[in-house]
Amino acid sequence: MPNIYINVHFKDEILDPQGRTILGALLKQGLNGLNEVRQGKQFLLKFENDLTAEQFSEIQRLAKELLSNPVIEVFSIEVKDEA
Amino acid sequence: MPNIYINVHFKDEILDPQGRTILGALLKQGLNGLNEVRQGKQFLLKFENDLTAEQFSEIQRLAKELLSNPVIEVFSIEVKDEA
Repeated sequence: MPNIYINVHFKDEILDPQGRTILGALLKQGLNGLNEVRQGKQFLLKFENDLTAEQFSEIQRLAKELLSNPVIEVFSIEVKDEA
Repeated sequence: MPNIYINVHFKDEILDPQGRTILGALLKQGLNGLNEVRQGKQFLLKFENDLTAEQFSEIQRLAKELLSNPVIEVFSIEVKDEA
């Protein structure tokens, strides 16, 4: 059955204070070579049947209108056929 | 340069009230066939150079100890060579 992952992150030009804090913590723990950390959200949507074209375009619409804020965030959608 | 994505989700047996709320909202918007929604976090780590084996095992350790709570959460790591 298809699992849909919707990843939502701040746009590159938007400050991400939580990411900055995590960057500091990881550097302090000795993780060298790390430049930047961005914290985002990931929504996992589990469907009972294979997706129709209509469902997929509906997912794209809802990712844009409901799950992300297009003013400050970008999203990506991954489809994985998982157990 | 390599980008590391660390995805953190609740374990299957852990209740996810935020996911339940989003499930209700998506069904109300007419997204049929949706069974379940789980909300997780996604950390994007940007590195300045290709990763060494030491860095990668360090990332695994920190994902487990710092970025997730092994009692209630699971994590996965994706490595993507992005611009």
